[in-house]
Amino acid sequence: MFEKITIVGFGLIGSSLAQAMRRAGVVQKIVAADLSAEVCKTVLEHHLADEATTDLCAAARDADIVILCVPVGAMGAVVAKIAPCLKDGAIISDSGSVKEGVVRDVLPHLPPHAQFVPAHPIAGTEHSGPLAGFPDLFINRWVILTPLPDTSLRAVEKITALWEAVGANIEIMSPAHHDLVLGITSHLPHLIAFTIVGTATNLETDLKSEVIKFSASGFRDFTRIAASNPTMWRDVFLQNKAATLEVLQRFTEDLTALQRAIRYEDGEFLYQTFERTRAIRRAIIEAGQAEYPVAPVPKTESPAKE
Amino acid sequence: MFEKITIVGFGLIGSSLAQAMRRAGVVQKIVAADLSAEVCKTVLEHHLADEATTDLCAAARDADIVILCVPVGAMGAVVAKIAPCLKDGAIISDSGSVKEGVVRDVLPHLPPHAQFVPAHPIAGTEHSGPLAGFPDLFINRWVILTPLPDTSLRAVEKITALWEAVGANIEIMSPAHHDLVLGITSHLPHLIAFTIVGTATNLETDLKSEVIKFSASGFRDFTRIAASNPTMWRDVFLQNKAATLEVLQRFTEDLTALQRAIRYEDGEFLYQTFERTRAIRRAIIEAGQAEYPVAPVPKTESPAKE
Repeated sequence: MFEKITIVGFGLIGSSLAQAMRRAGVVQKIVAADLSAEVCKTVLEHHLADEATTDLCAAARDADIVILCVPVGAMGAVVAKIAPCLKDGAIISDSGSVKEGVVRDVLPHLPPHAQFVPAHPIAGTEHSGPLAGFPDLFINRWVILTPLPDTSLRAVEKITALWEAVGANIEIMSPAHHDLVLGITSHLPHLIAFTIVGTATNLETDLKSEVIKFSASGFRDFTRIAASNPTMWRDVFLQNKAATLEVLQRFTEDLTALQRAIRYEDGEFLYQTFERTRAIRRAIIEAGQAEYPVAPVPKTESPAKE
Repeated sequence: MFEKITIVGFGLIGSSLAQAMRRAGVVQKIVAADLSAEVCKTVLEHHLADEATTDLCAAARDADIVILCVPVGAMGAVVAKIAPCLKDGAIISDSGSVKEGVVRDVLPHLPPHAQFVPAHPIAGTEHSGPLAGFPDLFINRWVILTPLPDTSLRAVEKITALWEAVGANIEIMSPAHHDLVLGITSHLPHLIAFTIVGTATNLETDLKSEVIKFSASGFRDFTRIAASNPTMWRDVFLQNKAATLEVLQRFTEDLTALQRAIRYEDGEFLYQTFERTRAIRRAIIEAGQAEYPVAPVPKTESPAKE
């Protein structure tokens, strides 16, 4: 299907994609590019790609597709670095959790003979690094493409075929709409989880150890996503600032209403609110999105993503 | 070990405890008491207890132990109802998620010849009703006892032995300390989860269906606990008002600090906050509290808990 695909940034997503592509047999050569020499060493030792190098431009040479799996704040700089090496008709895609900001950063560096197909696979675990990757990560998961007015249909079709080959389903929308939807489904929940776990982190030592001991009572559910890659999430919030602040405002209003109901002991308001939220859970189960992916814990501590 | 144990309120917890006690062989007769005739019918049809009745007082007669598994707001009224039937030396215990409020409500109705051992098993799933129960629920989970100055040591030992027989571990603390710890680990996380799922519920229809579709990106993790029993949680927040409002205040301050960092693009503050929260996840994994219990989805829709 493809001769050479280069993955820049070989963390959880890049590593999983490489393993999934190889298993699907869709590409002859997979090249890993990562600024960390340690990551490159791990890739070669564990045979996660055919080649690995810290020279991003060399890695991109002759590639049919270059997929950027770096934190969203680094996308522009990476494209600037690889642009001179891109062959005629090369396709750049990415896995960033924000799309408007990435498009804004990438376009000024995109050579006219290359195509850019912004993409976002809705998949991940709380683990980071190349050894956290596994080939099943994208099975039955959504990948959102946000093609631009100048993107060729052929480029979109190739990226679609690539993701479908590793088990994912494709959805297409505008970058702005993507950022609003993900602001609600992903960025706000992560911010809330980071906050609540952070609040617990600030407790005095004795109380903190009790919080850990009794975490099965609800707190635990937040710690999983609050263990996600900090560099990735710092960049997401900086890049999707407007949508995050907008949905955060709605959340704060709703929380304040519940807080007020507790203070004034308005049991009916609490009951009505808690009753309505059950319907969403049922809808998620019916949509087949309730199951957690098989997320093997890496046996050895993975090198950080950057 | 015991001749007769009565469980009042036969929902997820009551049903699980009955099944676990029977399997452990610690009691000769288990009696289910529930104000819902439908629940009693289900109990008998599925052989979840030896007897089932809507007459709480009759059910409590001759019982060695009566365990109250009703919403915390109903505990006082239930004890008032069963008090005339309690035999000399009977032990009352409960499974409520709040302890100071329950103690305050129960004590005025407790006859002098009975003992009260307040208890809270840190275990549960998002499902409700007798058919949601399963005997493994308490294995390797904590049960917090908050005995009172007048509680006899023998009564505490008996309740300890009962919970240990079904696989749980015992921790003892004061009611007030319990409510603070659970305010952080359980009540605040549930309030936050209810809020964020409620915020999504308020979205226009098109956006809401996209939130469900792409929920695997983080939102999903909140919907599980936001599907918990609404009556139970209304009562928890009303009964643990002071501690909930206190920890909610801390949370809001921390969230405001992150919101401000996003607005003013303070990437360093975001990174430092997100980095620190990873340590708590590691500590929870090391404490053996990271695994979700086996939570079979009930085959038929269970009757509501009340």
